[in-house]
Amino acid sequence: MKYITLTTDFGLEDGYAGVLKGVIWGIAPDAHIADISHLVPPQDLMAGALTLGRAIAYFPPGTVHLAVVDPGVGTQRRPIAARLGPYFVVAPDNGLITQALRRAEQRKQSLAIVHLNKPAFWLSDVSNVFHGRDIFAPVAAHLANGIPLEEMGDLITDPVRLHFPFPKASRDVLHGEIIHIDHFGNLATNIDRSYLKSLQIQEIRFGRHIIRRLACAYGDGSPGELLALIDSSDLLSLCEVNGNAAARLGARIGDRVEVVIHSDW
Amino acid sequence: MKYITLTTDFGLEDGYAGVLKGVIWGIAPDAHIADISHLVPPQDLMAGALTLGRAIAYFPPGTVHLAVVDPGVGTQRRPIAARLGPYFVVAPDNGLITQALRRAEQRKQSLAIVHLNKPAFWLSDVSNVFHGRDIFAPVAAHLANGIPLEEMGDLITDPVRLHFPFPKASRDVLHGEIIHIDHFGNLATNIDRSYLKSLQIQEIRFGRHIIRRLACAYGDGSPGELLALIDSSDLLSLCEVNGNAAARLGARIGDRVEVVIHSDW
Amino acid sequence: MKYITLTTDFGLEDGYAGVLKGVIWGIAPDAHIADISHLVPPQDLMAGALTLGRAIAYFPPGTVHLAVVDPGVGTQRRPIAARLGPYFVVAPDNGLITQALRRAEQRKQSLAIVHLNKPAFWLSDVSNVFHGRDIFAPVAAHLANGIPLEEMGDLITDPVRLHFPFPKASRDVLHGEIIHIDHFGNLATNIDRSYLKSLQIQEIRFGRHIIRRLACAYGDGSPGELLALIDSSDLLSLCEVNGNAAARLGARIGDRVEVVIHSDW
Repeated sequence: MKYITLTTDFGLEDGYAGVLKGVIWGIAPDAHIADISHLVPPQDLMAGALTLGRAIAYFPPGTVHLAVVDPGVGTQRRPIAARLGPYFVVAPDNGLITQALRRAEQRKQSLAIVHLNKPAFWLSDVSNVFHGRDIFAPVAAHLANGIPLEEMGDLITDPVRLHFPFPKASRDVLHGEIIHIDHFGNLATNIDRSYLKSLQIQEIRFGRHIIRRLACAYGDGSPGELLALIDSSDLLSLCEVNGNAAARLGARIGDRVEVVIHSDW
Repeated sequence: MKYITLTTDFGLEDGYAGVLKGVIWGIAPDAHIADISHLVPPQDLMAGALTLGRAIAYFPPGTVHLAVVDPGVGTQRRPIAARLGPYFVVAPDNGLITQALRRAEQRKQSLAIVHLNKPAFWLSDVSNVFHGRDIFAPVAAHLANGIPLEEMGDLITDPVRLHFPFPKASRDVLHGEIIHIDHFGNLATNIDRSYLKSLQIQEIRFGRHIIRRLACAYGDGSPGELLALIDSSDLLSLCEVNGNAAARLGARIGDRVEVVIHSDW
Repeated sequence: MKYITLTTDFGLEDGYAGVLKGVIWGIAPDAHIADISHLVPPQDLMAGALTLGRAIAYFPPGTVHLAVVDPGVGTQRRPIAARLGPYFVVAPDNGLITQALRRAEQRKQSLAIVHLNKPAFWLSDVSNVFHGRDIFAPVAAHLANGIPLEEMGDLITDPVRLHFPFPKASRDVLHGEIIHIDHFGNLATNIDRSYLKSLQIQEIRFGRHIIRRLACAYGDGSPGELLALIDSSDLLSLCEVNGNAAARLGARIGDRVEVVIHSDW
């Protein structure tokens, strides 16, 4: 079976994502196509990189992940495709693959990235304004068809990477920040489960709010209570039982979250 | 063919529904997957139950309907799966299957419900925060593959049911309420077509608005006119010709609608 | 392979589009189905016609395009299906096929349109309120199955067409207007690339804003700069580099855009 996923900032009104599917089926007639999201905030590369990074590993090996957040379409930025362990990613070279790439590197998976510079694998007419349709979707379909990555372009080793805001540790405080606010208003931080492993948390601070334990589940508290827990992407996350933490707290991407560690630990 | 549908409150931004599709394809590689809705209002079990109930019967026999509105994920609430006549439903045991179950019971279809307590049919790592991904999607895929329901867990006969607000009849008035406001602003009531059969309607009241007949179609009136008709789910519904009745009337779920019957009937 | 696309004003909350998919699979079990858009503004026929027109040609030959924006459902308006070159369109006869039809005519493709008046190809119970489900989806599935168009109904030659606002030319000014505002806030005009071919543009005017050249790409300028370019549908479009031109300019559908041609040209 052939699987292709779509992660874009195209929105859902205009039919742009539908067009990608038509182009894919024209080349890979039996591809199964799943939308990851078309509501990445317009031109927000980090949000796109995080969305792709959250989803990539839940698909079958061989899945081609097509990601298009592309403010630089038609300019000098390169189109690229990557093999990251068992997956493929096709995207503009603007950092959108940052998290997917980092994930593969952490797992020491085999990697290869090519600059897509072989027009034979594109639509015959390539615009300057919609490479998702004209370059990325055709390449994704050819990859799903089994065409080797290396035939699509020349190998590169310098893909653009976004600066990921890693948390900073002082003696007894881990200084993190909010990197994703989801549909439920849950506030995911940049503090991965692995940072907290073997630490004894004294409290978690967000502005004037203090949380004194890690909850086990979204319902592990009273309605309206502010919780901290490890979310489904293994990130420390703040949430409100049966509520919307982002709305209640007026929280935004980049807001600081501090984890205070027992000093006698 | 294998068909799986998705009804959730996950929203469309974050890729959570896409992840379900990846997990499903990992187990049932050739499943066709349809989104019913991912815009059930967060944690709104009744809205989820109604959405599932509206759609379930339009799919081919054997379709597996996966529904996840799950504020209690990770707590004591059970995960369940049900065979309701020709369909399967996989959901948390929090009332989400209420309308699908009621529909099957009204038709005297064969029913079986199991408590999903066999981890062999789940992902190997089960979080406390995303059973849609870790339990429900895998179970739905196994059901689509033809694994018997009864192997997935122990039979139960006490699924949680939501309280459905049935209309109340006095001598010459049927007292109903609005249970669903759709994308067009149409106001669906809890008054099913079957209640009105053989009744002679004198008027339909919503607040100070009075409607004196059942229209046949949304366009059966002048632009801006307030109509009552039987909608595509067989419910008495209020609507505005070429307009949005909810916006015009400021209507909300739970608002009362009265049907006055000819007293000499 | 069988491909069916969906373009509607159903929204994404209620499951109406999902129901179409269930009905389709009941008749064409192996159809691949793509959503073009379910966010056509309610009852906006021109927006629906434009959305369908933008997407239709990017799908494989034989694709059946199902379009439902249908304020007149249940009234005298006819249900129709058309063969437009290599594609099929199934829709209410209210102008929704205007742009798809015009496109086929410009290319001198073979055309046939039928009035869908053979209930044998519909669901057995046809409501007055949801022909998308009861008539159009079944017909689309039968067409995808290879049933000849001509068996579905009687040929007609007078489909309803919307009035498309073609640009008007005076001696040295092309008077156009905005016909589509997309998710990015880009402002597409009714001025097709073909109008500009071989013209030498002096300036493009929108209100008090003047743009002096056609840019090549969305990033072909400084952040915040207002650009004009030919968009992915070959229309003259105004956009803001890394921004939202519609929000910045307060632009709306119908607003005027003028292209001033060098008078000594």
